[in-house]
Amino acid sequence: MGDNLEISEFLEEKRALIEKGIERYFPQGGGYGKRVLEASLYSLKAGGKRIRPILCLLGYELYQGNSEDILPFACGIECIHTYSLIHDDLPAMDDDDFRRGKPACHKAFDEATAILAGDGLLTLAFELFTHSILLNKVSHLNLLRAIHKVAQAVGLKGMVAGQMADLLAEGKRGSLKKLQWIHNHKTVAFIEASLVSGAILASAPPREIKLLSKFGRNLGLTFQIIDDLLDIIGDEKTLGKPIKSDLKRKKLTYPSLLGIEKTKLIAERTAYEALSILEPLGVRAKILKDLTLYLLKRIN
Amino acid sequence: MGDNLEISEFLEEKRALIEKGIERYFPQGGGYGKRVLEASLYSLKAGGKRIRPILCLLGYELYQGNSEDILPFACGIECIHTYSLIHDDLPAMDDDDFRRGKPACHKAFDEATAILAGDGLLTLAFELFTHSILLNKVSHLNLLRAIHKVAQAVGLKGMVAGQMADLLAEGKRGSLKKLQWIHNHKTVAFIEASLVSGAILASAPPREIKLLSKFGRNLGLTFQIIDDLLDIIGDEKTLGKPIKSDLKRKKLTYPSLLGIEKTKLIAERTAYEALSILEPLGVRAKILKDLTLYLLKRIN
Repeated sequence: MGDNLEISEFLEEKRALIEKGIERYFPQGGGYGKRVLEASLYSLKAGGKRIRPILCLLGYELYQGNSEDILPFACGIECIHTYSLIHDDLPAMDDDDFRRGKPACHKAFDEATAILAGDGLLTLAFELFTHSILLNKVSHLNLLRAIHKVAQAVGLKGMVAGQMADLLAEGKRGSLKKLQWIHNHKTVAFIEASLVSGAILASAPPREIKLLSKFGRNLGLTFQIIDDLLDIIGDEKTLGKPIKSDLKRKKLTYPSLLGIEKTKLIAERTAYEALSILEPLGVRAKILKDLTLYLLKRIN
Repeated sequence: MGDNLEISEFLEEKRALIEKGIERYFPQGGGYGKRVLEASLYSLKAGGKRIRPILCLLGYELYQGNSEDILPFACGIECIHTYSLIHDDLPAMDDDDFRRGKPACHKAFDEATAILAGDGLLTLAFELFTHSILLNKVSHLNLLRAIHKVAQAVGLKGMVAGQMADLLAEGKRGSLKKLQWIHNHKTVAFIEASLVSGAILASAPPREIKLLSKFGRNLGLTFQIIDDLLDIIGDEKTLGKPIKSDLKRKKLTYPSLLGIEKTKLIAERTAYEALSILEPLGVRAKILKDLTLYLLKRIN
């Protein structure tokens, strides 16, 4: 309990740092097109746990002191996450009207603006990844490698393919193999890349990057399985979005395939697998371990 | 006439190189999400002049011998252009059913797939910009700068803002100031960045980068003004898309604001301004000069 309080305070502090970074690095103005900047900022500031950019900071902090050095990079990670939510919510995609207790971007603005806001945030990520602050703080080669890692994770053979497969799987008979493929591409790869890109930026040794990559995949899967569960047993108010939307759209999820109890067991097994991967890092991995258990027990 | 033949043969050769690059660097497979790869490739291979990636190669060739060195970067530029066309054609945006004589991506596939294909191509651009081939061929700092230049040009304060303003201007009373703002953001910035990024990758001296930037803006504007004209006086078969679509959507264009004759004069004046900017480069700029006149006289 004491531990959990500690990690939640730690996460709160990092979340505040990310939000400070968003304020600092988000572009101003926008002239005749400023509506798309307003829509992007509306979604970017709608809240959320900021888990992905925090993982990026944590990956860096394992090897370098001040993770504020890479704040524009971490904020870029959050831009990608927000773009993916805006586009996922569109009528042609998951058709969700609410996100984080507020109207989705296409409801608060309109569909065209939401498409453009997503496009703009995805592009802004790469502007931030190449921000002049980073050019002065990290190895240029490592920065290029970190950008490549993230782009692959969220690209045509990563998150985008996962979202495509997720849509195609709706209402169809699924298999565990297909479900795992979708989760790995739609969610896991980006969570893994968020952590690992931070470690790459900090010049972590290749052996430990490999370890963090394996840990990140287990952490990402834990996160997604809990997400599947919360859609059924979560509280709408805490979640900030209607529950049972996966059920309504006949999404392929762990509970839909295996039932609630078995899904809970798999989430726990995956989280404990993640913890065991961290063993070689010893006490250095304390925060990542606490975070894993925190995400396993989360209610929003 | 002889000159024109020469430049068109030159462009044809470069176009073939870009298309070879697309074949070589486009990702394979895609598992359960392969539909989005198919849709992306459908649009990427639908043809087009490949002007933007060719400008990138030309910017490089002004300073370095073999522009095949940066082929993945140039192909990334074309991925961004293709993504912008796919999203522009969506029902919520310009609602165009045809592109380059073929059904638009959302007609050949569906809306969700087209949104994802655009997202995937935009992301693929940054995967290609950080391709291992480039890491071995160009200065890492210059590569980061070139990526930043392109990302800014097509981002929330560039092309995306231009598209937003273009949509908002439909059916409204326009001004020359607003029209110029839209063209500068929607088209000109990306054309300029395509050329300049090639020069940055080739370590061009800052003074010449500035000159090319100014030239690129005039070339981009010439290109867009001709585009406005072709929507009215072009041939549907040659263009591969219905004409008068700007008229139908009451877009703010040069002909709608100033009439056809005055628009032609402005296009010529802009092109000759572009040529005069190139003077300090002397004979080295021959191809860029020929290209300018070629784009002024184009019919598709």
